[in-house]
Amino acid sequence: MTDVTTTVKRIAVLGSTGSIGRQTLEIVRALPDRFRVIGLAAGDNLNLLEKQINEFKPELVYYRDREIKLSTDGYRLAGLEEIAVHPGVDIVVVATSGKASLNAVLAAIKAGKKIALANKEPLVMAGEIIMAEVKKKPRSQAGTPAVPEKLKQTHQAEILPVDSEHSAIWQCMNGEKLKPARIILTASGGPFLRYTATQIEEVTPEQALKHPSWKMGKKVTIDSATLMNKGLEVIEAHWLFGIPYERIDILVHPQSIVHSMVEMEDGSIKAQMSCPDMRFPIQYALSYPDRLANPTLPKLNWDRVGSLNFELPDYKTFPCLKIAIEAGKQGGTYPAVLSAADEVAVDLFLNKKIPYSCIAKVIERVLERHQNTLNPKIEDILAADEWARVEVNHWTS
Amino acid sequence: MTDVTTTVKRIAVLGSTGSIGRQTLEIVRALPDRFRVIGLAAGDNLNLLEKQINEFKPELVYYRDREIKLSTDGYRLAGLEEIAVHPGVDIVVVATSGKASLNAVLAAIKAGKKIALANKEPLVMAGEIIMAEVKKKPRSQAGTPAVPEKLKQTHQAEILPVDSEHSAIWQCMNGEKLKPARIILTASGGPFLRYTATQIEEVTPEQALKHPSWKMGKKVTIDSATLMNKGLEVIEAHWLFGIPYERIDILVHPQSIVHSMVEMEDGSIKAQMSCPDMRFPIQYALSYPDRLANPTLPKLNWDRVGSLNFELPDYKTFPCLKIAIEAGKQGGTYPAVLSAADEVAVDLFLNKKIPYSCIAKVIERVLERHQNTLNPKIEDILAADEWARVEVNHWTS
Repeated sequence: MTDVTTTVKRIAVLGSTGSIGRQTLEIVRALPDRFRVIGLAAGDNLNLLEKQINEFKPELVYYRDREIKLSTDGYRLAGLEEIAVHPGVDIVVVATSGKASLNAVLAAIKAGKKIALANKEPLVMAGEIIMAEVKKKPRSQAGTPAVPEKLKQTHQAEILPVDSEHSAIWQCMNGEKLKPARIILTASGGPFLRYTATQIEEVTPEQALKHPSWKMGKKVTIDSATLMNKGLEVIEAHWLFGIPYERIDILVHPQSIVHSMVEMEDGSIKAQMSCPDMRFPIQYALSYPDRLANPTLPKLNWDRVGSLNFELPDYKTFPCLKIAIEAGKQGGTYPAVLSAADEVAVDLFLNKKIPYSCIAKVIERVLERHQNTLNPKIEDILAADEWARVEVNHWTS
Repeated sequence: MTDVTTTVKRIAVLGSTGSIGRQTLEIVRALPDRFRVIGLAAGDNLNLLEKQINEFKPELVYYRDREIKLSTDGYRLAGLEEIAVHPGVDIVVVATSGKASLNAVLAAIKAGKKIALANKEPLVMAGEIIMAEVKKKPRSQAGTPAVPEKLKQTHQAEILPVDSEHSAIWQCMNGEKLKPARIILTASGGPFLRYTATQIEEVTPEQALKHPSWKMGKKVTIDSATLMNKGLEVIEAHWLFGIPYERIDILVHPQSIVHSMVEMEDGSIKAQMSCPDMRFPIQYALSYPDRLANPTLPKLNWDRVGSLNFELPDYKTFPCLKIAIEAGKQGGTYPAVLSAADEVAVDLFLNKKIPYSCIAKVIERVLERHQNTLNPKIEDILAADEWARVEVNHWTS
């Protein structure tokens, strides 16, 4: 065991005004000697972005609507990808939603950055491409002596998971020589745990938005209610850790204290726990391989925890779970179709255009009609995404 | 991550006919390509020892009663220490009881062996001496070119914990750069969990020997009922991991599935779990840093686990817990007195010479009358042990 290094890590936050982006900046605020914000990027909430610029003084800023003049100064406006590959950035926190930062993620990997990935879509849509890119060794520049030493790409890119489940698995894999024999992703079960298939038919967006343990954005909250979120996490885990789908289990754990587990080759199980607070996995991704004391994070009080419950998921009441895992197993462009169809269906539900029970049905119909492309290129993935969005509207209009 | 090495590890089992010794040999039987038994040592159960000799064909054998002629052959009779330091032995499994192997442990450390330590007394009695010895670098032999390369001591000794709690902590510390901020030792609570101080007064040896989750030897089972066992484990953990007593917590967990936890600097908690079966920690100590698939070990069935409960310990009903921790904090020869007084008191209880409630009272009286020796030598520790045994008889006769 060695001392914690005391280098200041320079970070860019893509999606700084969303739930994960804001909590990332809370970590920076709590540990100002450890982290410095180099870039901020936001798609909306201009008001908050301006406040963040004033507080964290980034060098580079992106705001989606380029027509709007920001009232702050002292920085340079830049594109998402430009921020992601900037030489002054050590860690790119990807906390955007949907596919907004897919290209920025790929660019950051090519630039050898550490990517703290909170956004599910890049790995769900393009896990195969992303992980192949991550595994590439930095291009050898041995034959190009003209490249100054400082400009040579020496680092290999790294994906640092920020989802609490994947962070738990990553933490439990620490120091192990072998990959886990099995991954056990825990799921809170969402607000409709133990509802019957009939009871769940007509729940409202208001009911679905009340998550029992986690505070998150709207899309993720609905995905948590349908368990689609857990299905997407299975696909992410498959790519992140290189584990076959058959070796990824789901276990419902309503208290959201055990964030996931790994079962090792010898049957020993390791689990990671904390209060359900996203700042834990965010900080771990930023501080890795160090761990930093942060008095602003809540302590787990065992006297109040009492008991931790576990049960197998109800695939009948939550059809999205099986639909997602099946799309993952099919591979190719299926997961991109899954992700896009879900995004549109959730939006329609939130706007009361379709009932809750139709979310799964629409996604299933769209997947059934999809012509898969195996080993897809990014263009194939984006085309499948577009196709799925049109198709959802066909089934719901 | 690298491949598991396929070297055969050569082991000696001190205490081969006891509970841990027998389970160690079950692991060897299940994984014959990985482990070879070089030495066996037993204090009693000659019949079983002979069976073990016939099955595992050790080179060296020790039996406490030297007068008895064993009916087997093909090996050499040897002393405990001789087996522990034998050049053909990679790992010494110390599964004896009491202080029988204290000298053998010290000799094995000086010989640079890996010591799979299941016996609590060496660390409880002489933790300071043992850990100081473990930390010594192998003597430099740079100035002695006459020593043939093969005979130079190149390995530093290592203590590999076998207690399920310490194994759990060790597994959770894997890959972490910093020591845990806090250790949480779990305790089943034993057969008298939730008894009141009055109810527990007059329990019988038969009741105390019925442990709800673990199958163990008699002494450890009674120590589990009084929670003295957990107190001794606190002292062990203090020495093994170099953690101050103030940062070691105890949490009652009746299912004995979470074997212990570590809380890291950032508040993240890691736990290790399995069915309550000592073969898990034994195998991990033997296979470390690898993990080996072993189909003879039971799988944890989450559907049947249902819930894991946690509560703070009741120090009033289980006074041994505080007595032990206090003796650990005092240090010096106090823990040796604690350990010896407990051994005699438990023996008196099992033989119905004293009631259950007197176990704690006797130990407390003896500790109160002890004159501590700080930074003790082995002789001081053994003298304190002898003194305590006489003193217990003074209070109970």
